[in-house]
Parts: sequence; structure tokens; C-alpha cells
Amino acid sequence: MNIRYKCLISYVGTQYCGWQVQEKAKPPPTIQGELERILKKVMGRPVRVHGAGRTDSGVHADGQVAHWDAPAEKAHYDWRRIFNAQLPRDIAVRHVEAVCPSFHSRFDAKAKTYHYTLWTDKSYVPPRLRPFVWDCGAVNIEAMRAALPALCGTHDFASLQNVGTPIDDTQRTISAISLESVAPSALFVPHSADTLLQLRVTADGFLKQMVRNIVGLLVAIGQDKCAASDIAMILAAADRRKAPPTAPPQGLSLHKVYYEDARNCL
Amino acid sequence: MNIRYKCLISYVGTQYCGWQVQEKAKPPPTIQGELERILKKVMGRPVRVHGAGRTDSGVHADGQVAHWDAPAEKAHYDWRRIFNAQLPRDIAVRHVEAVCPSFHSRFDAKAKTYHYTLWTDKSYVPPRLRPFVWDCGAVNIEAMRAALPALCGTHDFASLQNVGTPIDDTQRTISAISLESVAPSALFVPHSADTLLQLRVTADGFLKQMVRNIVGLLVAIGQDKCAASDIAMILAAADRRKAPPTAPPQGLSLHKVYYEDARNCL
Repeated sequence: MNIRYKCLISYVGTQYCGWQVQEKAKPPPTIQGELERILKKVMGRPVRVHGAGRTDSGVHADGQVAHWDAPAEKAHYDWRRIFNAQLPRDIAVRHVEAVCPSFHSRFDAKAKTYHYTLWTDKSYVPPRLRPFVWDCGAVNIEAMRAALPALCGTHDFASLQNVGTPIDDTQRTISAISLESVAPSALFVPHSADTLLQLRVTADGFLKQMVRNIVGLLVAIGQDKCAASDIAMILAAADRRKAPPTAPPQGLSLHKVYYEDARNCL
Repeated sequence: MNIRYKCLISYVGTQYCGWQVQEKAKPPPTIQGELERILKKVMGRPVRVHGAGRTDSGVHADGQVAHWDAPAEKAHYDWRRIFNAQLPRDIAVRHVEAVCPSFHSRFDAKAKTYHYTLWTDKSYVPPRLRPFVWDCGAVNIEAMRAALPALCGTHDFASLQNVGTPIDDTQRTISAISLESVAPSALFVPHSADTLLQLRVTADGFLKQMVRNIVGLLVAIGQDKCAASDIAMILAAADRRKAPPTAPPQGLSLHKVYYEDARNCL
């Protein structure tokens, strides 16, 4: 009999070619690959780790969720410790728990929250923040905030989807979206209000690079290259070429994946 | 005629062999070396950059101060922009200003504040914080706080000085010392209170690795390997061998250097 484990993972994605293992002769480093390498060592055979979200190359996560199966005779293992002792320093397992054998990290995810962080002062970027922000320059925050309601709710987001695996249904529901000023922390250089901004967006699902395309659109609005009133037209076109360029990966982090509590039983 | 410039510098020290240029055939990367490389390019001749504090290999800074001289005909230069366009991404110049020709970043410094950050949960270290913390494990914070008064004030700190350039006077005055819990920030994984701690210490000057030796001593107290009541004896011994081991470099950051306002004139 197998036990299914669910785990919560945090990583700095800078050095990785995204979450997903690539089937190549010389596979590049991926988060899934690092986790599977350790499980293979522990189990003596290949074990698949299924992740909730396939983060892109250079994208981070503070709350990625994944699952895998292990034989019941290993039930006494301290999995978190096993992973953290062998993982590279830019990946860490925050939590591990046994769950229902039918739990699936991706198919059971009800919603996800992504954070995207912007640094708006072009003259200077704090070195500690550099790997985690897009230094997009000055923006009109009020104009960007005013554009958020047009994105919230259920829409066809085909205009904000980059090419990749073709999918039939490009309709998604954004249930929450906000643009917040991030307060200075004791770990950073002090900064003025509105120099460090964070877009927080929750949806039932995301198309390929949808958050980065939303950020690209919002920053274009904040820099007066397009207007909040254009959003309805951009979405209605269902054409990627109608929207501004994609924001770079390093500002993005998979913050949280939501499940129905009942799925975390055992 | 020359103009003297004072600048405020922030860096992630992980990849550098400290602040100071090393006179070797193949000099390793240093912060001072990176700044001087750019000035040499701009001026067409070697220019010395004088720093307020010689941070060690792997130590960070959010508020290092340095000065250099440039001919008056370059007075219209945007120095911050020149530096930031050419510096590696882990070093940034926050601010540049012209000062009195007699200003000296090191000799005029009245005091400095260093921060040292501890992560106390051994089972998991957030990857974003890893380069900036010592994951020292569980500590008794109350015991550590209770030890702070014995370190505050004027003492001979010879027991907390590592070998290096011999100096005559090992007396220093710690004017402020505190151990604070660092609040979760929107950029980090949430954590429980007291998982992330920061020692903040201000003194008129610091001996070689004095902050890291203070941290080593405090963590030993927090782990019941030594007691607050031992501090007076440790200091009185004036013998490095009487104190616990030095804390690692990555938790340390030069936070601020203080000057009399009158020295920043022009």
C-alpha cells in the first residue's frame, strides 16, 4: 500500500529552468527534477512528483504544492528533513503531510494566488531585492489601480495568454486582484512609500504567463502607453498581439494554492 | 581643484572577498575593487575609494559609506548613474553628494550600526533569506536579551576580537544593543514570532569580527552553553580563547555609519 504525501515548497527560481522536468538528453536543472532526484535516491526507483503550478524559468514560489506516493513501510520517515538535508540551498520544503490517496495537487487546486513585485525607482535597485523585482521605473499607481476592476471577474483571457500548449477554454475567473505598496522591512534598505509595489492576484486558474501579461498591461497603463478604458477592447479581441509585452519572470512568485479542506484528510 | 564625493553603498557580499582591495597578482573580487575599476575607467587613471568599514568576506552592507576625489571639471557628472550602470547587480550606489574636502569616511565616522540576522528554525530555512541569516537553531531569546546589558557601555573587548592587524587600544563603547524579532514581510514566507531575530548594535568603533563574536557569545548563551553571568569574566580575561566561536559572516550587514552633520557640508 502506498501513502500519498502533500508538501509545501519554497524556492528562488533564478537558477532553474522552471518547475517542470524536461525530457532531454541533458536535462537542465528544474525544481521538480531536484525533488525527484532525492526521491529516487530514497526509494531506489524513479518517483514522479506532481506540482500544482508549472512555474516558468526564473519564477519563484513561496507556496508551491506538490504530491507523491511512497510505500507504507516508509511512513515513519521525516520527509521534510530528508528533502531539506539534500536540496540545494535555493529550494526548501516547508511542510509535509499525508493526505487522501485521491488528492491531486493540480487537479484539486481550487485557486492560486500569485504575487508580482515591482521596484519603481530606476536610479537605484537594492541588491537584496534585485532577483525578486522588475525595476520597471516610475508608474502612475492610481491609474494602475483604476484598471484593476476591468480585469476582475470572469473573462476570456486569450489576449493575455502566451503561446504554448494550445487549450480550448481560455476563460478564467479572477476572484481578487490588488496593487499594494510593500512596507519597508528591517531586512531591506528603507524606501519611500510606493517605491516597492506588489500585485496580488487570485484566480481559479491561470493561462500561460497570464500574470506576467497582466503586469505588462498594468505597467503600460501606469506609464501612459495605454489606458484602463482599453482593457475591455483588449480582452474582447482575444488576440495576444493587442496587449502590451510580457513582464519579466523574476518579479513573479507562486504565493499560495487553495484546496478544499476535506481533501487534506487522512 | 578636486571635489570630494561621499557615497552611500548597498551590497550583497556573498560573492566578494570583503570590502578591501587585496594587493595580489590576481586580486579576488572586492567591493572597493569594483568601485575603483569604474572610477579608473571614467578618470583614465587609478583613483582610491576610501570606505568607512572594512567588511569581511561574505558580509553585506545596506549603508556603507565611502569617499573619493574627482577633478572639478567633472562636477556635472551624475555619479550615481555612472556607478549603477556599470556595477555588478549585487552592488548599488544609493546616494552621492559633494562634501567638504577634509571629509574622511573612516576617520570622521562617529559610530556605526551593524545588524546580524538569525533564523531559529533548523527544520526549514526560507530560500530567500538563506544568504542573509545564520540558521543557528532554537535559542532562548529571554536569556540572550538578559545578557545585553553586560555588553553595553565601555569595555575592553579584546576577548571578542579575532586575530588580524594588532592594535593597541581594544576598548570600545557600545552605545546601543538590542535583540528584536523581525516581523514577517510581504516579500517573505510568513513565520512565527521569534523565528527571525535581529541583533542591532551601535558602537563608536568595532574590533576585527567583534559583532560576529558578540553574536557567537549570545547564541551560546541562548543555547545554554554559557551564561549571561560569564560575560564580565570573559571580558576581564582579555583572551579570545575564553569566548565561544565566531558567528558566520552571512548574517551580518553594515547598516549605518554616523557623522557629525557639519562634516557633510558644501
